Amino acid sequence: MAKIRMFEKPLGMRDSFPEVNEQKEYIRSTARDFIRNKGYDFIKTPSVEYFETIGKASAIDESSLFKLVDNQGEMLVLRPDMTTPIARIAASKLLKEKNPLRLAYYANVFRAQQREGGRPAEFEQLGLELIGDFSAYGDSEIIHTAVELVKALGVENFRITIGHAGMLSAILTNNTNTKEQVDSLRQLLVEKNFVGFEQMLEEMQLQDTKKETLTKWIDSTVESKRLEEYSEFFTDEQQYLIDQVKQLESLLDIQLSDSSIVSFDFTLASHMSYYTGMLFEIHAVGSGFPIGNGGRYDELFKQFNEKVGATGFGIRVDRLLEVLPRNKIKEKHTLLLFEEGYYSKANNLAEERRKKAERVTLQYITGVTDLDAYIKSFDEVIIVPEGGSFCE
Amino acid sequence: MAKIRMFEKPLGMRDSFPEVNEQKEYIRSTARDFIRNKGYDFIKTPSVEYFETIGKASAIDESSLFKLVDNQGEMLVLRPDMTTPIARIAASKLLKEKNPLRLAYYANVFRAQQREGGRPAEFEQLGLELIGDFSAYGDSEIIHTAVELVKALGVENFRITIGHAGMLSAILTNNTNTKEQVDSLRQLLVEKNFVGFEQMLEEMQLQDTKKETLTKWIDSTVESKRLEEYSEFFTDEQQYLIDQVKQLESLLDIQLSDSSIVSFDFTLASHMSYYTGMLFEIHAVGSGFPIGNGGRYDELFKQFNEKVGATGFGIRVDRLLEVLPRNKIKEKHTLLLFEEGYYSKANNLAEERRKKAERVTLQYITGVTDLDAYIKSFDEVIIVPEGGSFCE
Repeated sequence: MAKIRMFEKPLGMRDSFPEVNEQKEYIRSTARDFIRNKGYDFIKTPSVEYFETIGKASAIDESSLFKLVDNQGEMLVLRPDMTTPIARIAASKLLKEKNPLRLAYYANVFRAQQREGGRPAEFEQLGLELIGDFSAYGDSEIIHTAVELVKALGVENFRITIGHAGMLSAILTNNTNTKEQVDSLRQLLVEKNFVGFEQMLEEMQLQDTKKETLTKWIDSTVESKRLEEYSEFFTDEQQYLIDQVKQLESLLDIQLSDSSIVSFDFTLASHMSYYTGMLFEIHAVGSGFPIGNGGRYDELFKQFNEKVGATGFGIRVDRLLEVLPRNKIKEKHTLLLFEEGYYSKANNLAEERRKKAERVTLQYITGVTDLDAYIKSFDEVIIVPEGGSFCE
Repeated sequence: MAKIRMFEKPLGMRDSFPEVNEQKEYIRSTARDFIRNKGYDFIKTPSVEYFETIGKASAIDESSLFKLVDNQGEMLVLRPDMTTPIARIAASKLLKEKNPLRLAYYANVFRAQQREGGRPAEFEQLGLELIGDFSAYGDSEIIHTAVELVKALGVENFRITIGHAGMLSAILTNNTNTKEQVDSLRQLLVEKNFVGFEQMLEEMQLQDTKKETLTKWIDSTVESKRLEEYSEFFTDEQQYLIDQVKQLESLLDIQLSDSSIVSFDFTLASHMSYYTGMLFEIHAVGSGFPIGNGGRYDELFKQFNEKVGATGFGIRVDRLLEVLPRNKIKEKHTLLLFEEGYYSKANNLAEERRKKAERVTLQYITGVTDLDAYIKSFDEVIIVPEGGSFCE
């Protein structure tokens, strides 16, 4: 016999009860106003997409996809991110008219979980994408907007770490012999496992010079070093990477009132495999995971037969909730209890108060099972008729 | 080789582009304010639930469920409605403390489609549930709130038809011989197929008196008839059904400023099989389908081992969009184009205007592929430096 699952939810699935839900609504509306003000348009995409269109192109590991089969026998997925669906839209329709495109979203995304008590299988994300732009201005706009948005949402103590996927690829490729070696080393960086990185270097069959260069690279990035000094790690053809980062740095200097909020770390790597240029993570005091991340992903559009530059970021609402102070955004909530025969009078009184934007619950007194428990969640309790049979 | 699905979406799945999305946002925020003002709390539930918990209990036909299997081999469904998930929450946790419970939602729900070009497979719904209430006051509150909400959302021309699932069950059961006959006749009423109903009556092996009573019933409901006159259709034990409806009618008379907006039709039947008491549909000029519906569903809680009264309604946002006038809620949107070297100046100008709540897109002029096409969607275009190299 199957286990009885009367009240249970699937692995990693959660309810949002009223208080948390209102905090999410505050985040949602603050972010929407801020992002629209910057000229971005919000869109919505379906929760379910073809595996072939979105599942494959997304940078999420296949084991984390929720897959299902439709009535036609086609493989579908619950969207694992929003960047790929927005790329689908941009490539299919809007792009030709309005280039560069600025699109934004507040959406839930899905990641299948393997274990109890772990990460959420569905979470809300808000973010934006600037599509059709290859310039450093685009990258700077994205980072600048991320900084200001996180501030606008009320996060006080946060930092942004910027890396560069192209730089990382170049340095790893320059100093290894196979793609497998590049991938293994990159994976250790994604996990921020520097000890593992140096151990693997020891185990790999690499020339001494390569090994030394990679060790130097890993060590050098933790101290402050001028961008020029990184030239030595790149070939002549790769020097443009330094120029890209320099340009981004100077634009951020112009834009950010406090540029100490950002720092560069070229060992930064992402599990999102589609990043090609700058990438960044937002860390805030109160969450062990980045509350947001972003980057340039020019390669993604090749899947949709387009040569288009694109850059963007997303913020995780669940992690934002961890770092934000618990503001009790509590409006006055009045309970109006009426006795038999006083419905009309009570109803008029309720409507009067509601017109003044007061929250009023109108309730037939005999319908309440446990009055003492019930009235606790209200700020004011009124009985109609006054002095009626209800005694506290 | 599989068909290439580069830009396609699964059957019945749709994108919401910016203009439609903003209309939905207007509906969402208007409804949220209105519903919270009435004392209801918004919650969120997962998109994915156990088939055993929600799929079976929901009144949606199994062929319309999106099913998937999780990593543990358990059958999951995309939620086909919100009433059942809210019942799950109410029965599991909150209910004991705060009874009656008033909960609300704005959520997407899923119904698998069999054909192209048909109904949506995912749509947004807003609604509320009053749980822990067996009284006519509860039913009246629900209908009253539905009327006022639809008005608040800007629907001008609409009507509400009220029926009673218990009455319908009684009259069909009184005048047939098997449960199959009841179900077949009810299904024809769900489809509003009155010709089919009378044809089936002819074909059924029923006593003449039963046949005559059902024919009289079907015919009588179209004309105006006082509630008392329906007594003849019920046994003595069933007369309480008339009293229930009378009480509801008199409460609605008190509450509704224009009670002609509601009418009773006791042939009204719903495909939602969990309704037990009053049920209603909201019809508006502009949509061939009800824009909303609701009713009392005391039976649903038996599935969660609770004896609890509950009543509520939901409104379909997609159908609301069909009947609402297309308000172009268009704020001024300014485009600020800057040339190389003028980033800092342009950025300051953009920030100044954004502080005045103006939407401003800041764009590097060389990054725009087709300037003529691009500037069309903006209300004002400013070039920095003034009189720069851009010529229209």
